[in-house]
Amino acid sequence: MDFKLQVTQYFKNLQNQICAALEQADGLGKFKEDVWERPEGGGGRSRVMELGNVIEKGGVNFSAVEGVLPPVIAKALGLEVAHFFATGVSIVMHPNNPNVPIIHMNVRYFETKRDINDTEIVAAWFGGGIDLTPHYIDKGQAAWFHQQLQTVCNDFNANYYPEFKQWADDYFFIKHRNETRGVGGIFFDRLQQTEDVSLQNRFEFVQAVGNAFAPIYTNLIALNKDKTFTSEQKQWQNIRRGRYVEFNLVYDKGTKFGLDTNGRIESILMSLPHNASWPYNFIPQAQSKEEETLQLLKKGVDWVNY
Amino acid sequence: MDFKLQVTQYFKNLQNQICAALEQADGLGKFKEDVWERPEGGGGRSRVMELGNVIEKGGVNFSAVEGVLPPVIAKALGLEVAHFFATGVSIVMHPNNPNVPIIHMNVRYFETKRDINDTEIVAAWFGGGIDLTPHYIDKGQAAWFHQQLQTVCNDFNANYYPEFKQWADDYFFIKHRNETRGVGGIFFDRLQQTEDVSLQNRFEFVQAVGNAFAPIYTNLIALNKDKTFTSEQKQWQNIRRGRYVEFNLVYDKGTKFGLDTNGRIESILMSLPHNASWPYNFIPQAQSKEEETLQLLKKGVDWVNY
Repeated sequence: MDFKLQVTQYFKNLQNQICAALEQADGLGKFKEDVWERPEGGGGRSRVMELGNVIEKGGVNFSAVEGVLPPVIAKALGLEVAHFFATGVSIVMHPNNPNVPIIHMNVRYFETKRDINDTEIVAAWFGGGIDLTPHYIDKGQAAWFHQQLQTVCNDFNANYYPEFKQWADDYFFIKHRNETRGVGGIFFDRLQQTEDVSLQNRFEFVQAVGNAFAPIYTNLIALNKDKTFTSEQKQWQNIRRGRYVEFNLVYDKGTKFGLDTNGRIESILMSLPHNASWPYNFIPQAQSKEEETLQLLKKGVDWVNY
Repeated sequence: MDFKLQVTQYFKNLQNQICAALEQADGLGKFKEDVWERPEGGGGRSRVMELGNVIEKGGVNFSAVEGVLPPVIAKALGLEVAHFFATGVSIVMHPNNPNVPIIHMNVRYFETKRDINDTEIVAAWFGGGIDLTPHYIDKGQAAWFHQQLQTVCNDFNANYYPEFKQWADDYFFIKHRNETRGVGGIFFDRLQQTEDVSLQNRFEFVQAVGNAFAPIYTNLIALNKDKTFTSEQKQWQNIRRGRYVEFNLVYDKGTKFGLDTNGRIESILMSLPHNASWPYNFIPQAQSKEEETLQLLKKGVDWVNY
């Protein structure tokens, strides 16, 4: 089977498997599916759950799109104007309970040819990442989360975790707030074939990342979903969601790529929460749990050994 | 008095006058003032009202900043890297009652010199605009709003209103939704001295725009603030506010300028509402007031003669 079809098939299966695991963890909510086509080529299968037991709003989106790369994107990638194919799974989960963290995962494959009819592939790479955005940081859980990602990485290359963890710190950063989005995770892009590493090996790594998502997040759900919370904590959650909106609309490259390539808007913006809040100049009380969380939203925290 | 000091003084007075008028119209809320300095030069006086009778969150910000223009902005403006001075008043009002429209105004003056010590001004211009974003469009009020702006414009130049109205349609446009932000208004930029028009005349036009704000908005408040509304209408308001957030974070040049020049974040983002909502793929019922509003969010509506 053609490589890109193998990858596409894996991503479709991953979407199925993750949706099943999340429905089971939620216990009430069901994913609603929307299949869509992109006029310029390809399409996707969006699945969104709303108002579940655990998940207030969350999407698990599969897409496989192709066409002529918009010149502005081609230039940003250092490519000639080219035919592109991109497939992937994107996930964002906004839970009801502020004690359950927001999570995001993206795994993607991208290839370009000079022309749609060419057989020669000019560039092919994988990208992706997982990052966690707790409304309230539980240091033990943040450490556990990073340990899980480190284990996935170490099966492939001991350099992956430190490199991709730093990349996540740099990427998931809200510059205008001087805050990281959450406790980070891993982020990687342009994992190409090299002399030492085959594209197949890159694919296996991306599969390991994708397969790690459901066990990690369902465990974090189980640990936190029954904790009680106050209306003040819900308000703090909405403020943190506001920061999430700021990151996604101002900085996120996947969102920008989607908007620039005429993707399906409601699928791209499924990452935005059901509710978000921007009270003016909110400053948490000294020594509060909110202030403690803010102080941990920094680059370079050694979470694995925290 | 130095021209830029005259302009600065006018903007400070305008802020005072508008805040007084809005406090009177609100009847309960008071503006909270934050004076801030920008490390690279200049500063501002932010005034934000929250949880008033009429205004849920609204800001009337004055600023006067100066320094070296960041290269990326200089390039976008077609200028050499230069010393800049920028002053203005920016307003966004998010009301409680979904029947009261959101309003925005900005009036600004910008000048550049090659060096801070130069007396020669390389470029000097005014910019600004007023636009209205009703959660529910009242056609008569939208027509009245545009007639007010047309009257202000016609005292200066019969071409201003049609030109600046179209500019607003093009500027306040949420491309990825294919929706205008609201019913538009006027938008203008780079109003420089020409052979026919002095910079003083440009200044007088900007003063006429600034002075029109309070009477226009307090009238719209008076017409709508006591109308009853349902929780479904409040939910619709939060969805429309979500669109407002999308516009401001993805497209608004003032927001981008503020973020790029290390402005005070809470002053720049005072434009974001207290609450906003993104339910997945919300589609209003056929023939509802919500659908009617959506259908009117288009460029090129001749509001003056509607």
